[in-house]
Amino acid sequence: RITLLQLEQRFLCFRQLEGVWPLPQDFTSSMEQYPLNPHTFHFGYGKQSVAQRGCSVLDSAFKRYFSLVFPDYSSGSKDKPFTAEISVDHDHCDDYPNEESSERYNLSVSERKAVLNAETVWGAVRGLETFSQLVYQDDSAKFIILMYVFNTFSWGILLDTSRHFLPVQTILKTLDAMAYNKFNVFHWHIVDDPSFPYQSCTFPNLSSKGAFHPMTHIYTQSDVRRVISYARLRGIRVLPEFDSPGHTSSWGKGTSNLLTPCYRSGIPSGTFGPVNPALPSTYQFMARLFQEVSSVFPDSFIHLGGDEVDFSCWRSNPDIRTFMQKMGFGVDFAKLQAFYMESIVNITSALKKTSIVWQDVFDYHKRVMVEVWRAGCYLCEVRKVAKAGLRVILASPWYLDQPGPTHDWARYYTVWPLAFKGTDKQKKLVIGGEVCMWGEYVDATNLTPRLWPRASAAAERLWSDERRTSNVDQAFPRLQDFRCKLVRRGIQAEPLYIGHCKHEFQGV
Amino acid sequence: RITLLQLEQRFLCFRQLEGVWPLPQDFTSSMEQYPLNPHTFHFGYGKQSVAQRGCSVLDSAFKRYFSLVFPDYSSGSKDKPFTAEISVDHDHCDDYPNEESSERYNLSVSERKAVLNAETVWGAVRGLETFSQLVYQDDSAKFIILMYVFNTFSWGILLDTSRHFLPVQTILKTLDAMAYNKFNVFHWHIVDDPSFPYQSCTFPNLSSKGAFHPMTHIYTQSDVRRVISYARLRGIRVLPEFDSPGHTSSWGKGTSNLLTPCYRSGIPSGTFGPVNPALPSTYQFMARLFQEVSSVFPDSFIHLGGDEVDFSCWRSNPDIRTFMQKMGFGVDFAKLQAFYMESIVNITSALKKTSIVWQDVFDYHKRVMVEVWRAGCYLCEVRKVAKAGLRVILASPWYLDQPGPTHDWARYYTVWPLAFKGTDKQKKLVIGGEVCMWGEYVDATNLTPRLWPRASAAAERLWSDERRTSNVDQAFPRLQDFRCKLVRRGIQAEPLYIGHCKHEFQGV
Repeated sequence: RITLLQLEQRFLCFRQLEGVWPLPQDFTSSMEQYPLNPHTFHFGYGKQSVAQRGCSVLDSAFKRYFSLVFPDYSSGSKDKPFTAEISVDHDHCDDYPNEESSERYNLSVSERKAVLNAETVWGAVRGLETFSQLVYQDDSAKFIILMYVFNTFSWGILLDTSRHFLPVQTILKTLDAMAYNKFNVFHWHIVDDPSFPYQSCTFPNLSSKGAFHPMTHIYTQSDVRRVISYARLRGIRVLPEFDSPGHTSSWGKGTSNLLTPCYRSGIPSGTFGPVNPALPSTYQFMARLFQEVSSVFPDSFIHLGGDEVDFSCWRSNPDIRTFMQKMGFGVDFAKLQAFYMESIVNITSALKKTSIVWQDVFDYHKRVMVEVWRAGCYLCEVRKVAKAGLRVILASPWYLDQPGPTHDWARYYTVWPLAFKGTDKQKKLVIGGEVCMWGEYVDATNLTPRLWPRASAAAERLWSDERRTSNVDQAFPRLQDFRCKLVRRGIQAEPLYIGHCKHEFQGV
Repeated sequence: RITLLQLEQRFLCFRQLEGVWPLPQDFTSSMEQYPLNPHTFHFGYGKQSVAQRGCSVLDSAFKRYFSLVFPDYSSGSKDKPFTAEISVDHDHCDDYPNEESSERYNLSVSERKAVLNAETVWGAVRGLETFSQLVYQDDSAKFIILMYVFNTFSWGILLDTSRHFLPVQTILKTLDAMAYNKFNVFHWHIVDDPSFPYQSCTFPNLSSKGAFHPMTHIYTQSDVRRVISYARLRGIRVLPEFDSPGHTSSWGKGTSNLLTPCYRSGIPSGTFGPVNPALPSTYQFMARLFQEVSSVFPDSFIHLGGDEVDFSCWRSNPDIRTFMQKMGFGVDFAKLQAFYMESIVNITSALKKTSIVWQDVFDYHKRVMVEVWRAGCYLCEVRKVAKAGLRVILASPWYLDQPGPTHDWARYYTVWPLAFKGTDKQKKLVIGGEVCMWGEYVDATNLTPRLWPRASAAAERLWSDERRTSNVDQAFPRLQDFRCKLVRRGIQAEPLYIGHCKHEFQGV
């Protein structure tokens, strides 16, 4: 609900709102502006806050956001002190964010004080991001602050670290940018056909044989912990994907008897296909692998993949065909895939994880969340999944790995995930959207300019009220400002069109 | 001419040649490999060399290439000394490269000595680049060197610093990458409609009013000198473009009476069009501006633009129409543009500069070099220009500012600039090709991954023998290697396809 202001005030209100991206769902605003001074400013805990000094998430967020609010912290006159007081209702300081974490917050700013109230520390982190975006440096070098109240919801970004290896630093930088954009799930498509960079304790050969390089192109356990911990402090969940039975060529290098031997003219051709679903050893291997993965990745969701399984190798293999007969599948290889996925879902369910699969698997399966990725009528698919009573994540319209001119950002902005015929209950099953950055043509050299600010367009779609953010022309200058803000914070976000930022990107 | 080797040798020879991009026009090679050790290696001047210690170009090139040859300069056993001895026939150490500069060189390597002979220091710089690309580190951490003899020719890269401002550091980094790719002309499209970042001594208001910001978004005289000097040491010419009469909106902010006032319904509309060709003051202004530009930029070529002139504003203006009548042009505004360009060419000719213009102007003009940029049958246009006896530069197929998937590099590779019907003499008039990086969607955040390695595909087309470099499949692994080499040297060149480099890009 917008509090109605007089015309002149409303204009100012809109101008002020330009400063926050993605736009909050709800807010009220006044015309006041208050000066800030780095020497007399501090973040503090509210008396009624359950979390107090010592809360890892908020202590580190205060430190981070102080630098973001005062990027040029130099001298200044001794103004009256200004306190930003943060209070939360629950002490989740040592937990991980999860699917039920509230990200609501209330932020109000008055002359010498900002008050930020949230149910959880994750909501407080979102509110701090907003607070940092509200502070401007005006021409007389004083800091000015405005005021809002609101709350919201969102989803994630997929990075593919198999087609190209992304150094840990690159992942951390992406997590920074995600926090600035209020994305809250990092979907780590960590392994795939080309390489297996995850260093497993249980099966060390998977990376020592399957990574591009066994020492320099892997994620050690400590790398993974670092990513998870860095994400946690920013209120971001880490959702690991170990895609099978297809997309597993690299798995075969460090483990024997896992992949299906393909046959040509009745004899093994020497090549391998998807995971072999006919051998009991396959499921023993998967049970051990997912047991490790479940304990390394604290999130309660796990992505099992299941996409693009090529049946031709299975079809060529006489042992698979015998197994099909035995199981009564006839020649329906979709049934074989369903059997395989069912078994893997059983494994992860026993580990108390919620399984997510790509839409390919949906037809055979009813105990999973479904990610819709294929082009075409993706809303038809979303509707189908929701009608079946399953939760759904939409990725199709946000495949950003293909380079496009930045001006196509509006394509990512004008997506309406709920524009299908369905009940309110069905629409509530659409739990988020995901930006996918596949790795065929992307590595650390071009990831950031290709991802930002195009993913920011998706961020506002997923975070903000559709009715208030449907106009591309209104969004354009706000997105330009926000892109300059990203550049100022060291994110190599590419330009939208002719123009300039006060502080240009300098690192080359 | 390839020296014929036995089959086995030829295979090895090709494998060795993979190491050099763009491929030299001519070479012979042996199978020998020689160890190098940073502790016992040094560059030196040959006894017969005209240039000796104190030659700025070569002294600084030795320093640069030592680091490039030994990027991990650490300890090593005391091997026998290895000398790379450079000799040149002419002492151009304090000159600028020009259109007649020979870039030929001979490089031969034997057990303890490399001998590099060139006519000029510019050829020696090219040979040093090749030398640096021939040195490999094998698994036993010894440096290995191979041997060739050859020589060649090439052209440039256009950067647009008006639509977005590019910090000087970004330009210098691009000059580094150009030297690695043996590009030898930096076409500096320095001003245009959106901004005028060149700080003129004669007309300081042009940048103080016409730049995006009068202090932070300009090129001072010392910035320009730094770019020219940095380019010179790398054998790169700096070709400035001051495009008129169109593309001059930003010029109008800092100077009065230069642009044509547009009229609507018989009265001035308050907007301005191209430069006003009807006023004598226009030519006085241009004479003074180009006098300054001619002395600041030492190159003997100057680019005058002349593209995309919109006649509607001229047509609306009664003073222009009166001038047309007086001059006998009737209503043919192309004649007016020809008259204007003729006057500008007269000004620059008097300053002893050779003028280059975009193809739009060719039809009216016979004393210029022509740059072909329009899409469509660009070879038809090349042929037309060559038949008219004018020199021509081809840019149409190399507009790299539009983002495209990296795998479209082959589009830039399979261009045949001489595939038109014409005499040998006409074909000799095609003096080079140019990669254009326009600035609508490009600034320091995304310039490098968008430019490299796609521009490298053009580099080989322009530098190498067509008959030896027509096969995309053969070029692909070589280009992949070269792209990793660029990344290793700190150039943020994007990947061509799934895979990895030994040293990934780390800067984020």
